[in-house]
Amino acid sequence: MATFHYNPHISVDCVIFGFDDEKINILLIKRKQIDKKVYALPGDLVKKGEDLDVAAARILSELTGLSNVYQEQFKTFGSPDRIQDPADIEWLKSIREHPEARVITVGYNAIIKTNDFEIHASSFAEEVMWHPIEKPQKLAFDHNDIANTGWAMLREKIKREPIVAFNLLPKKFTLRQLQTLYEAIVGNELDKRNFRKRMLRNKFIVPLDEKEQNVSHKPAQYFAFDKEIYKEDFAKDQWFLF
Amino acid sequence: MATFHYNPHISVDCVIFGFDDEKINILLIKRKQIDKKVYALPGDLVKKGEDLDVAAARILSELTGLSNVYQEQFKTFGSPDRIQDPADIEWLKSIREHPEARVITVGYNAIIKTNDFEIHASSFAEEVMWHPIEKPQKLAFDHNDIANTGWAMLREKIKREPIVAFNLLPKKFTLRQLQTLYEAIVGNELDKRNFRKRMLRNKFIVPLDEKEQNVSHKPAQYFAFDKEIYKEDFAKDQWFLF
Repeated sequence: MATFHYNPHISVDCVIFGFDDEKINILLIKRKQIDKKVYALPGDLVKKGEDLDVAAARILSELTGLSNVYQEQFKTFGSPDRIQDPADIEWLKSIREHPEARVITVGYNAIIKTNDFEIHASSFAEEVMWHPIEKPQKLAFDHNDIANTGWAMLREKIKREPIVAFNLLPKKFTLRQLQTLYEAIVGNELDKRNFRKRMLRNKFIVPLDEKEQNVSHKPAQYFAFDKEIYKEDFAKDQWFLF
Repeated sequence: MATFHYNPHISVDCVIFGFDDEKINILLIKRKQIDKKVYALPGDLVKKGEDLDVAAARILSELTGLSNVYQEQFKTFGSPDRIQDPADIEWLKSIREHPEARVITVGYNAIIKTNDFEIHASSFAEEVMWHPIEKPQKLAFDHNDIANTGWAMLREKIKREPIVAFNLLPKKFTLRQLQTLYEAIVGNELDKRNFRKRMLRNKFIVPLDEKEQNVSHKPAQYFAFDKEIYKEDFAKDQWFLF
């Protein structure tokens, strides 16, 4: 296999989360590996002369068909014993020119609406799927650690920058939809009354003069996320917000 | 030079800030390079089989004498054209076995009280110094970018976790000392009245029954940072703080 134009020491792993209007999923691939079913994050070596951000976009697209996803670097993983599982070693031998090389991997993460993107497996990915984050799944190498860290850091980012969450909602949404999203992010149920009370303190959540139509339950009011108000609120000098 | 036990592709750069009760400084080294005065961040190659965090501690200590500093990884820099300056290339040729190798560098940052630590140059550092961040200084490689990013990310961290700033103050401090620190971090003067009003909203800043002594001006009251109150305030579920 002609891998001579890859840098054998540096890889990128993509930790991509997708909200499907109900729950959060993580994008996984199944490797082409005879007799074995090994799930992994989409990830591969960086090319010689290739920038890290460029590599992250290329690798994600090559393996999963996803493109135009804004990925952010969150952490680099460089433990010398990242590769220990015999199945991983066997796979590296089948695909890499320097399977024994120590590989340091740069983690990138993102969260998107699953419905906005199509995925299809290619390159060494036999399958690609959205896997619910609440279901544990053993992954190759240290990918469980990378995935968990990527999720923890994304949650921290959402706390600081709620716009990341609101981007996952339709333009007009009900408070039930908003709560479903936040419950998926937080990972447990939230008290409805308390949630609504506290959420509506935020002036960037604007009530619309419109209700749900053709629903069997009592039609709920729609709300919208106001980017301008949000920006004003968050553009303030935040040094003293604590 | 016996550099065979180094991984020629991965380095660590340490972006260490120090508060000297007046201003914020960055820790720089001057390289041993004949005829040339090149300032750089303390940084070097990672050893084969060495963990990144361990490498960061070792490299900082070897070049600057600083140890027991809690450094945090903040970003990895992997632009393929990181090395362009002829002075840098010349220096790499004099010290590295593979001076042409593409090196990806992992940035670590920290902020400490300069008075708590002694520094002394060793290894390939000819000098080591605390350099005021307000004075621009051209650095080797892409170290200006690394230093600026490290500072920006540390400031963001201080916004989220003010304890990082309060750790830089003496156990009892005046509001003037607190303001000096924050002005150094923010990079400009702050309105005294407004600063005090907003700061004292934080219950973790506790007034002490004690004033300055032997000062020529009107003695100011001392305050203390209460870690327990701070923890309670910040341990709350912060999902709805916005």
